Amino acid sequence: MTISEATPKRIAVAGASGYAGGEILRLLLGHPAVRDGSLVIGALTAGGNAGATLGEFHPHLLPLADRVLGPTTVDELAGHDVIFLGLPHGKSAELALQLPESVVIIDCGADFRLNDSAAWEKYYKSPHAGTWPYGLPELPGRRELLVGATRIAVPGCYPTVSSLALAPAVAAGIIEPRVNIVAVTGTSGAGRAPKADLLGSEVMGSVRAYAVAGAHRHTPEIVQNLSAVAGTDVSVSFTPVLAPMPRGILATCTAVTTATEAQAVEVYEKAYAAEPFVHVLPAGRLPQTGSVIGSNAVQMSVSVDADAGLLVVIAAIDNLAKGTAGAAVQSMNLALGIDETDGLSTVGVAP
Amino acid sequence: MTISEATPKRIAVAGASGYAGGEILRLLLGHPAVRDGSLVIGALTAGGNAGATLGEFHPHLLPLADRVLGPTTVDELAGHDVIFLGLPHGKSAELALQLPESVVIIDCGADFRLNDSAAWEKYYKSPHAGTWPYGLPELPGRRELLVGATRIAVPGCYPTVSSLALAPAVAAGIIEPRVNIVAVTGTSGAGRAPKADLLGSEVMGSVRAYAVAGAHRHTPEIVQNLSAVAGTDVSVSFTPVLAPMPRGILATCTAVTTATEAQAVEVYEKAYAAEPFVHVLPAGRLPQTGSVIGSNAVQMSVSVDADAGLLVVIAAIDNLAKGTAGAAVQSMNLALGIDETDGLSTVGVAP
Amino acid sequence: MTISEATPKRIAVAGASGYAGGEILRLLLGHPAVRDGSLVIGALTAGGNAGATLGEFHPHLLPLADRVLGPTTVDELAGHDVIFLGLPHGKSAELALQLPESVVIIDCGADFRLNDSAAWEKYYKSPHAGTWPYGLPELPGRRELLVGATRIAVPGCYPTVSSLALAPAVAAGIIEPRVNIVAVTGTSGAGRAPKADLLGSEVMGSVRAYAVAGAHRHTPEIVQNLSAVAGTDVSVSFTPVLAPMPRGILATCTAVTTATEAQAVEVYEKAYAAEPFVHVLPAGRLPQTGSVIGSNAVQMSVSVDADAGLLVVIAAIDNLAKGTAGAAVQSMNLALGIDETDGLSTVGVAP
Amino acid sequence: MTISEATPKRIAVAGASGYAGGEILRLLLGHPAVRDGSLVIGALTAGGNAGATLGEFHPHLLPLADRVLGPTTVDELAGHDVIFLGLPHGKSAELALQLPESVVIIDCGADFRLNDSAAWEKYYKSPHAGTWPYGLPELPGRRELLVGATRIAVPGCYPTVSSLALAPAVAAGIIEPRVNIVAVTGTSGAGRAPKADLLGSEVMGSVRAYAVAGAHRHTPEIVQNLSAVAGTDVSVSFTPVLAPMPRGILATCTAVTTATEAQAVEVYEKAYAAEPFVHVLPAGRLPQTGSVIGSNAVQMSVSVDADAGLLVVIAAIDNLAKGTAGAAVQSMNLALGIDETDGLSTVGVAP
Repeated sequence: MTISEATPKRIAVAGASGYAGGEILRLLLGHPAVRDGSLVIGALTAGGNAGATLGEFHPHLLPLADRVLGPTTVDELAGHDVIFLGLPHGKSAELALQLPESVVIIDCGADFRLNDSAAWEKYYKSPHAGTWPYGLPELPGRRELLVGATRIAVPGCYPTVSSLALAPAVAAGIIEPRVNIVAVTGTSGAGRAPKADLLGSEVMGSVRAYAVAGAHRHTPEIVQNLSAVAGTDVSVSFTPVLAPMPRGILATCTAVTTATEAQAVEVYEKAYAAEPFVHVLPAGRLPQTGSVIGSNAVQMSVSVDADAGLLVVIAAIDNLAKGTAGAAVQSMNLALGIDETDGLSTVGVAP
Repeated sequence: MTISEATPKRIAVAGASGYAGGEILRLLLGHPAVRDGSLVIGALTAGGNAGATLGEFHPHLLPLADRVLGPTTVDELAGHDVIFLGLPHGKSAELALQLPESVVIIDCGADFRLNDSAAWEKYYKSPHAGTWPYGLPELPGRRELLVGATRIAVPGCYPTVSSLALAPAVAAGIIEPRVNIVAVTGTSGAGRAPKADLLGSEVMGSVRAYAVAGAHRHTPEIVQNLSAVAGTDVSVSFTPVLAPMPRGILATCTAVTTATEAQAVEVYEKAYAAEPFVHVLPAGRLPQTGSVIGSNAVQMSVSVDADAGLLVVIAAIDNLAKGTAGAAVQSMNLALGIDETDGLSTVGVAP
Repeated sequence: MTISEATPKRIAVAGASGYAGGEILRLLLGHPAVRDGSLVIGALTAGGNAGATLGEFHPHLLPLADRVLGPTTVDELAGHDVIFLGLPHGKSAELALQLPESVVIIDCGADFRLNDSAAWEKYYKSPHAGTWPYGLPELPGRRELLVGATRIAVPGCYPTVSSLALAPAVAAGIIEPRVNIVAVTGTSGAGRAPKADLLGSEVMGSVRAYAVAGAHRHTPEIVQNLSAVAGTDVSVSFTPVLAPMPRGILATCTAVTTATEAQAVEVYEKAYAAEPFVHVLPAGRLPQTGSVIGSNAVQMSVSVDADAGLLVVIAAIDNLAKGTAGAAVQSMNLALGIDETDGLSTVGVAP
Repeated sequence: MTISEATPKRIAVAGASGYAGGEILRLLLGHPAVRDGSLVIGALTAGGNAGATLGEFHPHLLPLADRVLGPTTVDELAGHDVIFLGLPHGKSAELALQLPESVVIIDCGADFRLNDSAAWEKYYKSPHAGTWPYGLPELPGRRELLVGATRIAVPGCYPTVSSLALAPAVAAGIIEPRVNIVAVTGTSGAGRAPKADLLGSEVMGSVRAYAVAGAHRHTPEIVQNLSAVAGTDVSVSFTPVLAPMPRGILATCTAVTTATEAQAVEVYEKAYAAEPFVHVLPAGRLPQTGSVIGSNAVQMSVSVDADAGLLVVIAAIDNLAKGTAGAAVQSMNLALGIDETDGLSTVGVAP
């Protein structure tokens, strides 16, 4: 659990007043290396909110409530060993290029997730900044690239749950390479910038789809992940749906299969047997987002609809935890060579 | 608007303390024929709740709050011209068989929806009671069967939204006969009988799928509707998802297509041009359940995901209104020969 | 129900893209005088949203979805007989002073509610524009001032529920002139302008008080109403609490009494016996906001806590309906000399 | 942090399938003494749910999901050093009387909270079982009674927040002994037994008061706590309000004062300066329940309404954490002589 007897490492969080920044801080406050002093929470920075205290934005983080937010600048971030970025896309790349190579930078934004410059430019309408190791260690071959890494791109929340829900089937070749994903999400994924269509009055008592028919920016990221696992192109239909809750994503994933349910379950149980955070539920049980809130757990069920000839995988995560900040901390643990599960939990807060 | 100068017709509602019964009464209280006295709200009956006042169950129905609920018996229902049934499946059939042929019976339950006895027995584990005219006049060829009918089966809420979302594409032959539906619903569809997993503490802040992989009883009803429109078997994958809101269903429907978006939109606009309650949204707008609460409207968007080669139709209804009680009143209007839209509205209550 | 055989009267709504404007339009769409053509919905105007269609802001108002919003100017509002104002305070007064005396202006804002210029200036930090007849006909002596009026100030939502909950006790002298009100409200009362602390992510799963200790601008309005009824100064402690729901206010009102519960109930039943929208619940029943959503009803319970020596009145309204738009339509009905209840209902949408 | 090098102590939870039991287990799974093995989670028992796995009721407690629930009997609970009781009132007393004196029993129910047998019998309609040390160490003189105790009565959730919000003012004599409390709560306080009026369909989108005018069973407990602090009788008006959220209580507490706000704030800051879980917010900030979810924190604001002459204290807790299970674990820590804050946090899960 201890990292070193010597100098503690210093952590900075850029974008600390947002939801991703707040959740990273919440997890760090419970992290054993922070509690034993081998990691220290240093600079907390913000854009327009600089100068205010953290307590004005995150009154739930009482131990840090009086911390004053600095500006998100290279100077303010100097002297830190680990820097988490919770910034709008574009801003991460701009900042990262000015920071020393030796610092561990963990970017919760999209800038360095995609391999394909054309896909980046199509979806983000800006030049592609590059590609970093991808912080989803549960995908085949990814964990080893994160150990000791100094640059890590944290996956998008939808790609996390979707890729984990489908990768075993894709890898085992038990489905056709054409998948359908409808993912119901809480509102925090849309961030904290005030918008009229995210007001409580608008979202409570209502669900709506958005960015349908391939328009969502996470679509190429899911395609990239599943195609890499498949070794061939996988076609992805992705529909995000906004539901009246702050956190959580439930993904309903279907694909044509000839496997039986028993065969499919076996594939999934084997794929995730050694994973500390991914849990395949026993037969007859289905996941709910309410069971993973605040945790790094992925809960999923694996079924086969024999009449329709489809594999049906339902998977739940907390979009802010495993979907963002939990993955960021998990990535940090791997980068620093400490236990991957430190400061993370499979225990949710319910009801 | 007036039905007759002569004797007013009497309406009874069996199962008045439940959600379907309450919503039927809410709509009837605003119905012009009730307001002008040509229709009269007569007996309100219940099972275990008989003897109580309606106000104990539906305090929102102030004008009827002091009405005492009678028992759901043939005697109590005698002397009525129209009887709405909001009863558990099995109970409707049992009761209906004892009521006079001449009475208009509108069943909100499942007993008389399916044609296929084998499908009924597979999903409901009981003998099939028969098949009544199906109260979804917007499906091809259905409206004329409802005019003057004395027995009407109100569709299930999921089949209503799913069938309306897919029927035009099926009828026009622009999709392969293999559809995928993920429908996010509010909790009132599960009824008012107390169950631990429907407690507010359980449903708020969480979404979950249930009855996945073809297990939901509405699946064969959707198959039946779409296959009838297609003139051939349509394969249906149906996944219901429970969301933290009382009312509303948002269905995400996909199917393989080679049509362009413009072609698909044209098909839908043509199919529903004359329908008073079905509204195809203009390009760039997507439906939300919050816009149809309390109304009989169906709002839908039609898109094509060119990369994935899929038609994507998103449709929203109020499960208690167009999904149940609104369809019941619409059916009554057709049965009695009054204006189909009387007492119904496309105006929702929002926010 | 008919107003005149002659020329229909034209109604304009300024601020039509906001919540008050939308709810006024929802009610007008169901108003018998609009349905029979004796009232016509004319100009719909907005500030920054001018040029857009109404459907972009109120997709639940399908029949008006294609209406284009004009600018909120004197020219745009010219030629209308009734003008509803749903504008920020200050804007109403500015506009109203430029409109002809003969036009019926019904202001949903605060500008003309208070008598006391000093109180206005203390709470609103601007010059006092004046005082108009107050659109709460259920208060003693108010209804007659509204009949035929051409200027009406619609009460604030909190003052509506609080004043109706306490006026009978104050008038009967059964409480000490010192009242305590804690009112739990939905989010729509805060309007539609995007603010970070009104985001769905912030309000769902949480309640918070705001503007405590007399800071809320509705406090002097409640003082004014109750003091007028009492004929002496009434001291008011008012605490608003924001709850995770779009609509509704539940006010818990207490005051020292020596009356018995039976005496108190008699006072209230007598006070509201002839009121179409105010309903005192039978013993043992308590109001809930869910029963009055979309309606113009006020439901209340009257209890006495004998141990504490307090009258306890709990009252529920829909803040957007009876609390704003319903009162506005009720006021219009009185102003135009049509039936006060036209287009309004005591039937809520539940669950 | 370690308790002993020797034999680990064994903990049992009776009523493990309920919300209190689940929350105790959630906290224990993060408790350092459980993580280092000096405390061990032993028997988990239930009433009607015995025989099922814990995962069927608490799927968020993944590490214990496969544990089978035993029956709640003396035999099943034998051999444990600490027993938490999350049982209906009456059941705790019945069971506790059969357990050995030496075992630490921490009762989350009401059986042993009240001193006054007459008050017990009036509110609970059953014989009074006795009085145990009261697990609210932040009240004057209470902490020392808990150190080393073997019988502890965990306070009710409302009395916890109300007593902490008012005790400093009562102790300092800055208010009249007549207090008014309106407490808005989430639904989990009502437990997990299915009831129609707690269904999600009923509670979402609605608030309602219940057990008004002194009828709530927590009223005499608040009276007892405040009167003990005052050394004289304190009159309490208590109104609970149910809001659409799973967790949290926000109490609005008022009382007549002649103190200034500065004086009142000083009283509170001094009273709680050394308390690890009670936090008086800086001027201008108000608490919200969303900031304390999952934590043991109490956040409160202290204001004076000079016009009304009232102290206004707003206080927020998580009813399941500090209001029940957190207090239970805090009590266990004191009873066992370990650090009072072990396994507890002031960091909430938000948004």
